[in-house]
Formats: sequence, structure tokens, C-alpha cells
Amino acid sequence: MIKAVFSVFLVLVAVSSTFGKYIPKTGKRIPQTLSRGWGDQLIWAQTYEEGLYWSRSRNKPLMVLFHLEDCPHSQALKKVVSEDNEIQRTLDEDFIVLNLVYETTDKHLSPDGQYVPRIIFVDPTMTVRADITGRYGNRMYAYEPSDLKLLLANMKKAKKLLKSEL
Amino acid sequence: MIKAVFSVFLVLVAVSSTFGKYIPKTGKRIPQTLSRGWGDQLIWAQTYEEGLYWSRSRNKPLMVLFHLEDCPHSQALKKVVSEDNEIQRTLDEDFIVLNLVYETTDKHLSPDGQYVPRIIFVDPTMTVRADITGRYGNRMYAYEPSDLKLLLANMKKAKKLLKSEL
Repeated sequence: MIKAVFSVFLVLVAVSSTFGKYIPKTGKRIPQTLSRGWGDQLIWAQTYEEGLYWSRSRNKPLMVLFHLEDCPHSQALKKVVSEDNEIQRTLDEDFIVLNLVYETTDKHLSPDGQYVPRIIFVDPTMTVRADITGRYGNRMYAYEPSDLKLLLANMKKAKKLLKSEL
Repeated sequence: MIKAVFSVFLVLVAVSSTFGKYIPKTGKRIPQTLSRGWGDQLIWAQTYEEGLYWSRSRNKPLMVLFHLEDCPHSQALKKVVSEDNEIQRTLDEDFIVLNLVYETTDKHLSPDGQYVPRIIFVDPTMTVRADITGRYGNRMYAYEPSDLKLLLANMKKAKKLLKSEL
């Protein structure tokens, strides 16, 4: 909605503030984000090891999102997940989050194979919650954009920790 | 240097484009970058697995930087590395780069222990270049800000691949 249209006089001072800084031949790049589009306001772990450490120390479940930039199913899921307020708020407040475009060496993160998109929950006890699955028998940890309600329900399951007190 | 001062008329249309987007209670955050301050113009791998894959497929050595946000030695090294044009250009053009604040499960990346800052080179053949060391006998892969020339020399060593043709 257009709330107001107004004009301003701006004095732009062209200061060569970037003098001396390295700029690639192909031009200045936008710094890569760790969110990779799954929620710029969330605090993302960089690696599985980092995610596990945060999960244990803060006693919050870890959600691992496997995806690929050139996979249309991943992109479609990313769009709805990043735009859903309830999911974003719940992830921010109650979860440790990690998104990966490469598989880890830990086989527990691919209980029924390596495919994308795939969402695996891990309890703060470092136990992979293989019991928290989507609706597809052949790819148990896959979600489609229409599965957002199931994903939210699964997030609630993951929040019920295996041990309520450590 | 001020090259030009000019003014423009800008029509700003205040569109409530952020309506409905999730904003944390503590206020809007700046998205995290994968560079973590080591060079916003470089293309960083997220994980060691990703770095190894790129290194193999592009036949470029991988440079892994271990550091910590609350380590003054890491911060001091980061400042000089990120501000040195020759290092940044060489890393961008000839290397795959990865910076990590958590250790990996691969013991080969800590030949003489886990400490920061620590710089390990990996050949595209996936061989850790334990032979490329800094100047400190007890922490062979540590560098100080005054060691930039040695770091550049070591980068040149790493560019001489173990197998020139795969």
C-alpha cells in the first residue's frame, strides 16, 4: 500500500571511500549471507558442529535444512518458509537453525538418503529425531510448500525435548 | 577525494513493503555474512565439505581459516588480511576460501592441535598441506599480523599443486 509520496532534495557527495579496497574484476559483489534466503533475521549456525554446540548449550532443538540453489522444490519451500511469520518467529525464539547446500559426513542426517529439500530435527541430547517425518513415504523428511502446517506441527513435536531436564 | 558534488531530485515512494515481515523483538538485525569480516568480496564456502568439493572441481587449493570472534589475535589478523589487496585478490582468483569458528570432525585439519588463529592449506587432491607452516614452532599454523609476507609466500607455495594435472 502506498502510504505517502514525497520528494526530498538530497545532496550526494561522491566520496571515493572505497579507494584502495579490493574489488573483483567482475564488479563489486553483495556479501553472501548465511541465511541463503531462508530468513535473513534468523541467527544461522555455519556448520553442523556449531549447530550441535549451540543446541546443547542453549537446550534448544536444532533444525537442519538441506537444500540446493538450483532445485526448484527447494526454492519453492524456501519462499514459503522465509515468508511465514509464525515459522520464522518460532525458529528464531525456540530453535537453533542451520541450512546446508552440502551434505555432512554424519550419516545420521540422511536416515533415508541424501535428497533436497530435506528437514531433519536434532534434539539437544544430539539425537537425530528420525521419528519426526513429513508426509511422503519414499522421502520421509521432504516437505512441499503445501506442507507448512505439518512442518509447524513437527516443530512443536521437536520442541518437546527427549529429556526435559539435563 | 571528493570528485564531484551534485544534487538530485529523488521521489521517494514510501511503500509499506516490510508489512507482515518477521522482525525480532530485539529489533531488525543485519543479515550475517559468510565472510565474518575476512573479506566481503570473496566467495566463501560454508563448510569444509563444500570447500573440498569446490577445490577438487575447480582445481584450486583451499585455504581454511580457523578463528574466533572473541580472540584478539584472530581479530588483529582478520583486520590486516581483509585490508590487504594482494591477499584478497589472490584468494579471490586462485583459492577456494573457508573461515570457521568451529572445529570440524576431521583431525587432519589440526595437525598440531586446535588453536586460533590457524591457517591450513589443502591441495585439490584433498591432501592437507602440513608442510606449509608459519614461523612458530609450538603453533605451526598460527600467523600474526606481522606475518603477512610469509602468508603470501605460503599462498604461493600452496598454488604449486601436488599434481599439476589430474
